[in-house]
Amino acid sequence: MKLGDGVEAAIHCAAMLAGIQGDGTMPGNAMAEAFGLSPSYLLKHLKALTAAKVLESVPGPSGGYRLARSAENITLLDIVLAIEGREPAFRCGEIRQKGSYALEPAVYVKPCGINVAMLKAERAYRVALSETRLSDIVADFNSDTDPRIVAASCAFVVQHQRPQKTRTINERNKP
Amino acid sequence: MKLGDGVEAAIHCAAMLAGIQGDGTMPGNAMAEAFGLSPSYLLKHLKALTAAKVLESVPGPSGGYRLARSAENITLLDIVLAIEGREPAFRCGEIRQKGSYALEPAVYVKPCGINVAMLKAERAYRVALSETRLSDIVADFNSDTDPRIVAASCAFVVQHQRPQKTRTINERNKP
Repeated sequence: MKLGDGVEAAIHCAAMLAGIQGDGTMPGNAMAEAFGLSPSYLLKHLKALTAAKVLESVPGPSGGYRLARSAENITLLDIVLAIEGREPAFRCGEIRQKGSYALEPAVYVKPCGINVAMLKAERAYRVALSETRLSDIVADFNSDTDPRIVAASCAFVVQHQRPQKTRTINERNKP
Repeated sequence: MKLGDGVEAAIHCAAMLAGIQGDGTMPGNAMAEAFGLSPSYLLKHLKALTAAKVLESVPGPSGGYRLARSAENITLLDIVLAIEGREPAFRCGEIRQKGSYALEPAVYVKPCGINVAMLKAERAYRVALSETRLSDIVADFNSDTDPRIVAASCAFVVQHQRPQKTRTINERNKP
């Protein structure tokens, strides 16, 4: 089982955007630079996060990306599903119906117990991911990371964020 | 995130082998036939299960595969790790150290909090997988599945199992 490495990039970018003041945005190129990623590679993942309404993009020369809602309301599950899709990792191929002793399809009314058990375990994974909010990641970063790293990250955000005048943070959080 | 479809095949084969009497074995070809799989495809996964000591293989013309220990002592986690490997699904690329504001490597002593949070969720997944034993899968199959499917499966096992005279079940369960 493997998660695409886009998940790591997506969480780092979302955590960085959580540090932007007010309604400001940050261009994708700046985030690519921050993590040594190819801008076109990162753009694909930023678009997926935007499509999933984790981020929103502001067009135009002074635009960029920002969180679509507060970091308290974004979980790791939101980000993982945005990048990896909502399908379960275990995909039942119903091989119980494909072999030499298979009966007519109408007999297989109940779902295969193997599928049921595998999906139950995946629910536990998703619950655990949903219990970590982006704001937890940011708070842990600020309290547990070497202060030089925190300072460098803050300085990067201050340098690359772009203030926007379109909406206030309160307007953004309205339903 | 996607599990390889070998996991489905592996769990079905292990559950089928749990139905074999005593120390009997079943050839890989028979299990491939049971689930409509290519024998060479299935062989790869049976070898992985054998390498992980979930199954054991008995060589020779009357040989085949059998469980390496009782179904009560095999979990879904054992099977998933045998097929998918033991590495976590989330693989931290330390991109925090690869961008334009990265500091010298010595500053990054503590693990990245994003990695810590992702691995914590994966532990929940693995715990859930470890809580389902192969014997639970078999018991649920016998009690919850249409009796015609159970009967067809039993008949297939009876037809294709190969009795072995090398060891008794009690000897097999000795440490």
